[in-house]
Amino acid sequence: MDKLELLLDQMSTKQSCLCVGLDTDPNKLPESLSYADDAVFEFNRRIVEATLPYAVAFKLNTAFYEAQGIQGLLSLEKTLNFIKSQNASILVIADAKRGDIGNTAEAYAKAWLQHWPFDALTVSPYMGMETLNPYLAMENTFTIALGFTSNPGAEDIQGKLLNDGTPVYLEVLRQLAQKAGPQKLMMVVGATRPSAFLEIRRIVPDHVLLVPGIGAQGGKVEDVMRAEHPGRTPRVLINASRSIMHAGMEKDFDQKAGEAAQRLQQEMARFM
Amino acid sequence: MDKLELLLDQMSTKQSCLCVGLDTDPNKLPESLSYADDAVFEFNRRIVEATLPYAVAFKLNTAFYEAQGIQGLLSLEKTLNFIKSQNASILVIADAKRGDIGNTAEAYAKAWLQHWPFDALTVSPYMGMETLNPYLAMENTFTIALGFTSNPGAEDIQGKLLNDGTPVYLEVLRQLAQKAGPQKLMMVVGATRPSAFLEIRRIVPDHVLLVPGIGAQGGKVEDVMRAEHPGRTPRVLINASRSIMHAGMEKDFDQKAGEAAQRLQQEMARFM
Repeated sequence: MDKLELLLDQMSTKQSCLCVGLDTDPNKLPESLSYADDAVFEFNRRIVEATLPYAVAFKLNTAFYEAQGIQGLLSLEKTLNFIKSQNASILVIADAKRGDIGNTAEAYAKAWLQHWPFDALTVSPYMGMETLNPYLAMENTFTIALGFTSNPGAEDIQGKLLNDGTPVYLEVLRQLAQKAGPQKLMMVVGATRPSAFLEIRRIVPDHVLLVPGIGAQGGKVEDVMRAEHPGRTPRVLINASRSIMHAGMEKDFDQKAGEAAQRLQQEMARFM
Repeated sequence: MDKLELLLDQMSTKQSCLCVGLDTDPNKLPESLSYADDAVFEFNRRIVEATLPYAVAFKLNTAFYEAQGIQGLLSLEKTLNFIKSQNASILVIADAKRGDIGNTAEAYAKAWLQHWPFDALTVSPYMGMETLNPYLAMENTFTIALGFTSNPGAEDIQGKLLNDGTPVYLEVLRQLAQKAGPQKLMMVVGATRPSAFLEIRRIVPDHVLLVPGIGAQGGKVEDVMRAEHPGRTPRVLINASRSIMHAGMEKDFDQKAGEAAQRLQQEMARFM
């Protein structure tokens, strides 16, 4: 089985498209974790254990770990290893949104798909399609390129119309779809763009979309699922971070997180 | 003196716009450094000492350090501290090209302008102008946003024409110029775009431009300098990485690097 088949298989088995985002901020942890040497890792470990039955992927937002310097990157490394020790076939994404040229892109690919052996890395396509080559060349991994992001400011550049009437984001998605197939490439499309989903699916029918923006940002599972092909496993990974991580702040925060993940999974299962 | 005045003052004193890029790859170091525990830092230390008389800024390309994991980030941290210990007023840039929304952008700003106290951070504006706010809010630092990059693939998106006939990169630069003044914001424009420089300078007359792409990528100091206002300190930081770092591979690699830096400085001085 290639990595895409493995993911679709997990989705089908778990009846879930849920990706749990671990955007762990040490200043927002439950007080009950104040005993721990590495409270960020301890928090992540318990969230992972509680949500694993309902999730097909975990996404570590590198910014939150980098903000703690070396200590943060040690927490990230331990979290990655822990998830893989629990279930080697679960997809673990480094949400790093890297983007640079030539030998620099090679170094980023090496950092996030080899040194830290994540299964997938988010990247920005802004510097051009050639800049994706080093990530795509890494075996048995996914490159996840930004398509149309969930924030209002996405209109500034991604939403601008080109001289043929196409919005920039659709042109980017068109170029991405030509660049690599669904076995190697996914795209990020925000859940806050329901009206764009059908149009995007015409251009990118088979690639898996990584969809942030449900919950805190206002996107809905239903709107995302409606644009999917009926009769096959939906090719979306719907990310939830804060609504799961901060579902509870007491000692039972992990149980609350598990319940929040289960609710999302059940909502997804209706469309599967 | 604010940070911009300090930089222009250094440029005028040293008759230089040179930024030395430290894209240090442990597999490309002189053999004479194989004795060192931290050969990357040792290499950087000697390059910094040799080029400091001719440079007004150093730029650490984070990818090369991330590719070595924790050890690499320790080398980066030591290099930053060493440069600051030599000359606290020299500009040290984290070339990280980060770009993300809301609280994630805040975490990146904290990581690269506070935890690691760089003077400036390169960022991607692709997700929109609002995403620059957390970097711009950091006191006494520069945000350096991508404008028009030096690689051929820049044509894929940055070079596309919008429906009013403006290329995407000029629209981005226009929005950036409205977003923040030269005291807080710089833009990246590749030296491989000489024909674009005059037009860019009409839109962005006063912001400092960070210019990669001379040397290995084919850009020329002269072409960059020609677009500058005569009679005032040129508002460009011209970066050279490989042509300085790899000027020599023998024991005197640092002397060779110093000579390469001096040659570039002398070329720049003709226009100052």
